[in-house]
Amino acid sequence: MANPLFTDETLRFMFETWVRPDELLQWPVFGEHEREGFELHLQTVTRFARETLWPTFGELDREPPRFEGGRVFVHPRVHEVYPTMVELGAVAGERPFEVGGHQLPRAVATLASFPLMAANSSAVGFAYLTGGAAHLIESFGDEALRETFMRRMYEGQWTGTMALTEPQAGSALADLTTSARPLGEGRYAIRGSKIFISGGDQDFSENIVHLTLARVEGAPAGLRGVSLFAVPRLRPEGEKLVFNDVHTSQVIHKIGWKGLPSVALSYGEKDDCVGWLVGSEGRGLSYMFQMMNGARIFVGANGVATASAAYHESLAYARERRQGRPLGRREAGEGPVAIIEHPDVRRMLLRQKAIVEGGMALVLHAARLSDTAEHHADEKQRERAAGLLDLLTPVTKSFPAEWGFESNALAVQIHGGYGYTSEYPVEAYMREQKLNSIHEGTTGIQGLDLLGRKMVARGGADLRTLVEEMTGAASEARGHGLEEIAAALESARDQLVATSTALGARGMAGEVDAMMRHSDDYLRLVCIAVVAWMWTVMAAHSQRALA
Amino acid sequence: MANPLFTDETLRFMFETWVRPDELLQWPVFGEHEREGFELHLQTVTRFARETLWPTFGELDREPPRFEGGRVFVHPRVHEVYPTMVELGAVAGERPFEVGGHQLPRAVATLASFPLMAANSSAVGFAYLTGGAAHLIESFGDEALRETFMRRMYEGQWTGTMALTEPQAGSALADLTTSARPLGEGRYAIRGSKIFISGGDQDFSENIVHLTLARVEGAPAGLRGVSLFAVPRLRPEGEKLVFNDVHTSQVIHKIGWKGLPSVALSYGEKDDCVGWLVGSEGRGLSYMFQMMNGARIFVGANGVATASAAYHESLAYARERRQGRPLGRREAGEGPVAIIEHPDVRRMLLRQKAIVEGGMALVLHAARLSDTAEHHADEKQRERAAGLLDLLTPVTKSFPAEWGFESNALAVQIHGGYGYTSEYPVEAYMREQKLNSIHEGTTGIQGLDLLGRKMVARGGADLRTLVEEMTGAASEARGHGLEEIAAALESARDQLVATSTALGARGMAGEVDAMMRHSDDYLRLVCIAVVAWMWTVMAAHSQRALA
Repeated sequence: MANPLFTDETLRFMFETWVRPDELLQWPVFGEHEREGFELHLQTVTRFARETLWPTFGELDREPPRFEGGRVFVHPRVHEVYPTMVELGAVAGERPFEVGGHQLPRAVATLASFPLMAANSSAVGFAYLTGGAAHLIESFGDEALRETFMRRMYEGQWTGTMALTEPQAGSALADLTTSARPLGEGRYAIRGSKIFISGGDQDFSENIVHLTLARVEGAPAGLRGVSLFAVPRLRPEGEKLVFNDVHTSQVIHKIGWKGLPSVALSYGEKDDCVGWLVGSEGRGLSYMFQMMNGARIFVGANGVATASAAYHESLAYARERRQGRPLGRREAGEGPVAIIEHPDVRRMLLRQKAIVEGGMALVLHAARLSDTAEHHADEKQRERAAGLLDLLTPVTKSFPAEWGFESNALAVQIHGGYGYTSEYPVEAYMREQKLNSIHEGTTGIQGLDLLGRKMVARGGADLRTLVEEMTGAASEARGHGLEEIAAALESARDQLVATSTALGARGMAGEVDAMMRHSDDYLRLVCIAVVAWMWTVMAAHSQRALA
Repeated sequence: MANPLFTDETLRFMFETWVRPDELLQWPVFGEHEREGFELHLQTVTRFARETLWPTFGELDREPPRFEGGRVFVHPRVHEVYPTMVELGAVAGERPFEVGGHQLPRAVATLASFPLMAANSSAVGFAYLTGGAAHLIESFGDEALRETFMRRMYEGQWTGTMALTEPQAGSALADLTTSARPLGEGRYAIRGSKIFISGGDQDFSENIVHLTLARVEGAPAGLRGVSLFAVPRLRPEGEKLVFNDVHTSQVIHKIGWKGLPSVALSYGEKDDCVGWLVGSEGRGLSYMFQMMNGARIFVGANGVATASAAYHESLAYARERRQGRPLGRREAGEGPVAIIEHPDVRRMLLRQKAIVEGGMALVLHAARLSDTAEHHADEKQRERAAGLLDLLTPVTKSFPAEWGFESNALAVQIHGGYGYTSEYPVEAYMREQKLNSIHEGTTGIQGLDLLGRKMVARGGADLRTLVEEMTGAASEARGHGLEEIAAALESARDQLVATSTALGARGMAGEVDAMMRHSDDYLRLVCIAVVAWMWTVMAAHSQRALA
């Protein structure tokens, strides 16, 4: 039986509990949609993910892209599936009608992203990266850039990448040295090197637009000197596309996501590389960070999706594989039982389920906050949601990545010796998952962001919002007779408050090191408390639905 | 700089603290040894591991064995290094002089195994498996079997394997169906299939002896009907070796330990496979379990070794790689610092170190208990050590496997995006480590063994011994002014006692399921408490040495 990736019941439950479509449909921006349209969209995407995309996973993993004659050639399946992914909104699902998008709520688009990512992270990676890159141009580029680049990217004709990292700088973007020399009319001569550029080269689209951070000559040192450029592989000159001096210098041998090549790029080796400034000079990093927050939610979604695919593999295996006998039935002469009957196997399956569905709720809640922050009629509601989303972003990125890796390791464990072979797909999901704790800001960086910025932002207002939400969820749970769950959540909330206060006091006293040294533990504490809150809400909703 | 695998200081500290050679040298069995001999042995082995064995690790990982014409051909490096490993005691280091061994204390042999395993688990795997298989014959076989098989195995001329698992039975050995038909004179016709046989085929030794569990025709069902046989690939007939109808039917594509082939074997396809009974009929499982306990300690050693190799990779990387600036030095115009200066990188390195050295202490302590249990003059001491070793065996197997996997994932994390590539060795160590939670009894099985058998064995006497040891270590630490550490250990001890009592009470009340459902949590609790005890002992020893 094929892997369902997510069951229909789970998708439906999450749709009702976290997307809450009826409220969204009352907002003018989504006025042209209907509940049935959302449902049909989710069904269509899920069927494509299960029937077309998932069967390509093993192929892309086993036959990575070839690097020949300076170009990267990806698996033929990518050529086949890319147009359908564009059609299904993987590039522009949540973008407005006016730029060629489907104008879906982000919560709906995110729910639809789960089965796609569970089916094949590498293949959908091309689409989501293109969407993110085009969105940068949509938000900050002028009309000419939107017409030349964004429209073709949203339509699926061209693809896009995010080109931040340089070999010598890694995550320290202040140290990047790629340079931009003004040529007039918003055009700059780009020169430098980038590394770890996902989708940085491939052969299935006509062109690739690299959204590239570089430093205009004479710009100040550090982060304030960084600007954003659209640097296509081929640049439009009249009716033609000519080579823009962007070379693929290396393909990195990643241990997962093998279908999506990660490459090193070299710009302007012959001094003939043109980049178009996006927005204003010196604002590159702030633009990028607006996108980065969305990208971090998507990494969270990927963590959940990868964990879910592996969970369903191990669930099916545990139901089929017969081995051993439960305690007390050893001498009864009975045949071996399906291993799902062994308590420790059930424990591992339940832990995976708790991680997958807890993470799924967290990611959807973040996406829904993003909808509220952007489209709610009430400004206070918009601000409150934006603040809470800011606070939850590092959590939403990290919980699925870190606990998802544990979950994927458990899927291997349930398969026993067979899980340790490449004959079963679970080891591949474990490899896939590891990337999520590294890309778009490592878990360490998420911890610094949470404790050093988000916790103290706006005088702690966002943290107070979180505490209010947890308190509300606990009392709602209590109202449904879930006393034990409510008390546990309140205790987690109190620990969160006490720890935040104690660490904050160190910061106020100028002992910044003594505060920040605990950033990882703090991140883990908040992850657990927040996912407990998610489960409490789900428990209360279930009680209400049953009643 | 080459990976040291373990620093000389660490090896020396562990030698003094846990091996305690001066006491061992007073026992008659080790009377022919000297302290300097032990030290020289450790130095020789460590040099070979660093200079000869470690450089082969990447080669064996990248070029796994070929399966051609029904035979397995391993990497040429294995042919080169095997004789030296035999010479250095990897096969028979701890066996008595009279059978061709070096008669080393197990604690010394185990300490020597760390650098070998850290250098290349696959290559040394051939040697340790051969040693274990030959030891079975030494312990339970008659003089003819010892002469024919054991001696050649200890000498390195032949190798050996452990052939337990069958495709349909997995860990449920009661269900194995390989059959043995008596041919007279201790010889049996063997027929059946085995799977996951490590080192089950290769081309570097003249012959391979499979220590195989099978069921004599007419034997009772279940575990009591299982006997042990020595089944060589080639059987001696007069002066010749003739093919013994043992076929390699499949090579399994493991995701790590790639240099050591894991194969499926088919016995007696032409009804011409002869096995020699080892010991008595129906005792196979009890023989195997005596060896299994030793094998589990060795899995623990491997977990520590694999984690240590990765730890040293990430330590060296963190010292070399310059990226970013610590808090408070961002605007000072200073260049990037080595990432070891970032608190979160230090946290990850320290966590690895705590796991590696805590696990190392645990494994060495177990090996030392085994020496005491076998050779101490005082029977009471022997019994006490044997009981505590029994209790600690599942812990010694599981802590390095489970926490070692966390440690190896941290080594990848410290390397950032580079860690996620096959250009750096850390991802390979992460793959290697995963096997240790699966082979020789999964972590789930260790939990059942600890809670269901070991905790309640001998009326709880072994658990009381553990509690006494922890109490003694805490008061010794207190004597050296380590009040905080002592109190923390006492608190862990009290939690261990309370949890054991509570779970035991459920068992006594007949609620076996309600007890055993917690086997994994119990195992984790005991792991943490025991490693805390190890660190407390090491802290006290350090204080004494400093004073």
